[in-house]
Amino acid sequence: MKEIGKLFMEYTKYQYLEESDQQKGEPQPPLEKEYLEGKIIKLPKTFNKREIILDDAIIRRRSVRKYISVPLTIEELAYLLWNTQGVISKNEKATLRTVPSAGARHPFHTYLLINNVENLQEGLYRYNALSHTLVTVNLQGKIKEELVSACLGQTFIGTSAVTFIWTVDIYRTSYRYGQRAYRYVHLDAGHVCQNLYLTAEAIDCGVCAIAAYNDDLLNNLLGLDGENEFAIYLASVGKI
Amino acid sequence: MKEIGKLFMEYTKYQYLEESDQQKGEPQPPLEKEYLEGKIIKLPKTFNKREIILDDAIIRRRSVRKYISVPLTIEELAYLLWNTQGVISKNEKATLRTVPSAGARHPFHTYLLINNVENLQEGLYRYNALSHTLVTVNLQGKIKEELVSACLGQTFIGTSAVTFIWTVDIYRTSYRYGQRAYRYVHLDAGHVCQNLYLTAEAIDCGVCAIAAYNDDLLNNLLGLDGENEFAIYLASVGKI
Repeated sequence: MKEIGKLFMEYTKYQYLEESDQQKGEPQPPLEKEYLEGKIIKLPKTFNKREIILDDAIIRRRSVRKYISVPLTIEELAYLLWNTQGVISKNEKATLRTVPSAGARHPFHTYLLINNVENLQEGLYRYNALSHTLVTVNLQGKIKEELVSACLGQTFIGTSAVTFIWTVDIYRTSYRYGQRAYRYVHLDAGHVCQNLYLTAEAIDCGVCAIAAYNDDLLNNLLGLDGENEFAIYLASVGKI
Repeated sequence: MKEIGKLFMEYTKYQYLEESDQQKGEPQPPLEKEYLEGKIIKLPKTFNKREIILDDAIIRRRSVRKYISVPLTIEELAYLLWNTQGVISKNEKATLRTVPSAGARHPFHTYLLINNVENLQEGLYRYNALSHTLVTVNLQGKIKEELVSACLGQTFIGTSAVTFIWTVDIYRTSYRYGQRAYRYVHLDAGHVCQNLYLTAEAIDCGVCAIAAYNDDLLNNLLGLDGENEFAIYLASVGKI
């Protein structure tokens, strides 16, 4: 599969798309797979906003891999989550969020490796965007090293205050767009990560986007099958 | 190729990547293919900045397909181009821009369908990011209809003041990342488009991202071969 990228661009052209499940009248998938097995933590809804100018955020943004040991507050974490996946409004068919998504499909879940956030035990969590809550997924001590390892040993993940891990529920987008959905979810993940970069500037944090990882190891750690749901992008965050 | 998306995600995993051209010591591709055949138009370097708060831009952003007929100024267009692809600094190997890109590869060119920008003739242009100039590509009257048609008849492209068309020079990214580059360029295009959405809020414009288009028709109109260089994402912009 030497030219898989070229083949992918070729066979996701419109002329090759089959009738989508939406066009066939199939029921649409849920807006979110709510994860409820762990302990639920309500997130604050008011945010300690510092008013940062958009152009300042854009010009100052750098990819930063070195963080100081000052923790994030839960308010700051909630603010980052809100500005990257926050649900502004919803109806039965779609959510309107703080980021754009092809056809308002919003196929993502946000997992978080939390290393240094005030009043939160270290470990792996998930954000339930619809209820603006966190839920614990894995609080075992070794999850941090396992995630660093799944990301090919990029040590700054371990020294970040929190690392965002965006995963895709592909059917939420392929239901409407068929195989072309695989293009769209990557474009959409870019929107999300850019909002994280810019928002981090308002709370004196640096961000580093991460797309180099061992897909199988990472998906396994998250409990995803790697086909219907899979990791698509990550970003570490910490005070600078 | 019913499951091309699944195959793509599978065969762009790290374990399948071959030694990259960079690892082989091949010379790196140029930072930009400067397009110089047309008439060059210098863009203003100072921007008529209105100070918009980041959070206001994020919360107000919507995908907007209906525009009023007020033109953009060249300063406003230059501002949108700067905040989406502006080159802050460069050396021989890389550029640092107003958006993040995997390995600072920045594989994009920005084409513009200009319909309603003060003092600019209607037609197709390209942005040369390194020199912060525009260059004319095709000023024939029918290019607008041809582009609308390549975008499956989405008429708001024709009524936008300007439509951004981002294209990829894939080797700029695959030189380092092999076939996984096809993931990265989509993620990167999402960063760019999100900056356009947010920046447009500062100049009372609405944006609509567009990923539904006939690849072959669009690439042909842009004079791209569709394999080494191809369109990846578009966004219409207009006053609202």
